[in-house]
Amino acid sequence: MADELVLLDFSVSPFGMRARIALAEKGIKYEQKLENLQDKSPLLLQMNPIHKKIPVLIHNGKPICESLVIVQYIDEVWKETSPLLPSDLYLRAQARFWADFIDKKVLEFGWKTCMTKENEAAKKELMETWKLLEGELGEKPYFAGEKFGYVDLSLIPFSTWFYSYETFGNFSMESEFPKITDWVKRCLEKESVSKSLVDQQDVYQFFGLMRKKFGVE
Amino acid sequence: MADELVLLDFSVSPFGMRARIALAEKGIKYEQKLENLQDKSPLLLQMNPIHKKIPVLIHNGKPICESLVIVQYIDEVWKETSPLLPSDLYLRAQARFWADFIDKKVLEFGWKTCMTKENEAAKKELMETWKLLEGELGEKPYFAGEKFGYVDLSLIPFSTWFYSYETFGNFSMESEFPKITDWVKRCLEKESVSKSLVDQQDVYQFFGLMRKKFGVE
Repeated sequence: MADELVLLDFSVSPFGMRARIALAEKGIKYEQKLENLQDKSPLLLQMNPIHKKIPVLIHNGKPICESLVIVQYIDEVWKETSPLLPSDLYLRAQARFWADFIDKKVLEFGWKTCMTKENEAAKKELMETWKLLEGELGEKPYFAGEKFGYVDLSLIPFSTWFYSYETFGNFSMESEFPKITDWVKRCLEKESVSKSLVDQQDVYQFFGLMRKKFGVE
Repeated sequence: MADELVLLDFSVSPFGMRARIALAEKGIKYEQKLENLQDKSPLLLQMNPIHKKIPVLIHNGKPICESLVIVQYIDEVWKETSPLLPSDLYLRAQARFWADFIDKKVLEFGWKTCMTKENEAAKKELMETWKLLEGELGEKPYFAGEKFGYVDLSLIPFSTWFYSYETFGNFSMESEFPKITDWVKRCLEKESVSKSLVDQQDVYQFFGLMRKKFGVE
């Protein structure tokens, strides 16, 4: 029996994008079901009763929730094609460390920069965060070295926030972080990435709607 | 050459306890170096320049940071003895999901219950969180079934907070969560756990000091 894969998703979600990239890297066919987060489907509530959030990967009827858990699961089940985590155990721990760092810092400070009026403190922290990532990338083409991997996959969805960062935060990612800018271009040359990300304008429009909803403007 | 292992640690840290339990489960000898978090050692700042936090496991001179990353690393390097993550890939994903849930919910709401004066909202969320965990445990002896594993290890350090929960939150863990209470007793019968945890009174005294420091009292 062929595997049946369904991804409960939301177009502008960076976490959904992670799952999409992992599935594309492995060349796995799946059905994408887009959710309306204002009116969540009974399927989403049934499959992720704890967090009620996308993405959820449903593999032969069984749900896997939380984007990094999903990506590691995909990498372990389809381990022969395009490995995402390094096989070296120390490098694997380092990759998990940086993915966790991205979840803790890039998300929080990016959200606050785009979603609060008095965003100077958040913007400062966001720029510190990207400075650390620029340092970690260094002269390497990808975070783990020569090949696109787990840290790249975890971080690249946030490149769709750059136009929003720049507009709400009033700074230039390209001027401040030239190595990250080159790395984004390099990742976007991969079809698995380019077809999984949305346009930066879509994310900017989403933040615009959210800012109205939460009375930020 | 024998492995050289150093754990930078802090006695009442639940994250330090996770690393201690994992090392004890595997029967690995290591040197514990306790940090003074008011005056962090040059070694800690050198080994964890990003977060500057304990625990850090230093394996033959190379640092691994963040407790769940450390535990997974230990489990992968010493994989023959007392496996912590399930070998079944779906169950492994579920274990990672619950460990992430613990990091997000048990920590935040427990801290707020113990560290804020107006703690009713946090206490309600904390009790909801433990209710979900009690439901997930169900009638099983351990979270993954018959054997102590990754979710148990991730959660059991927070049992040292129970006296603080009860005192600052004014409720009884034993009355509210009888299955969790029995599970704690079961875990404490294991020497790897009992010798890795501190007394609940030590944690309560630590919260007392923190409450004074942050002007909660």
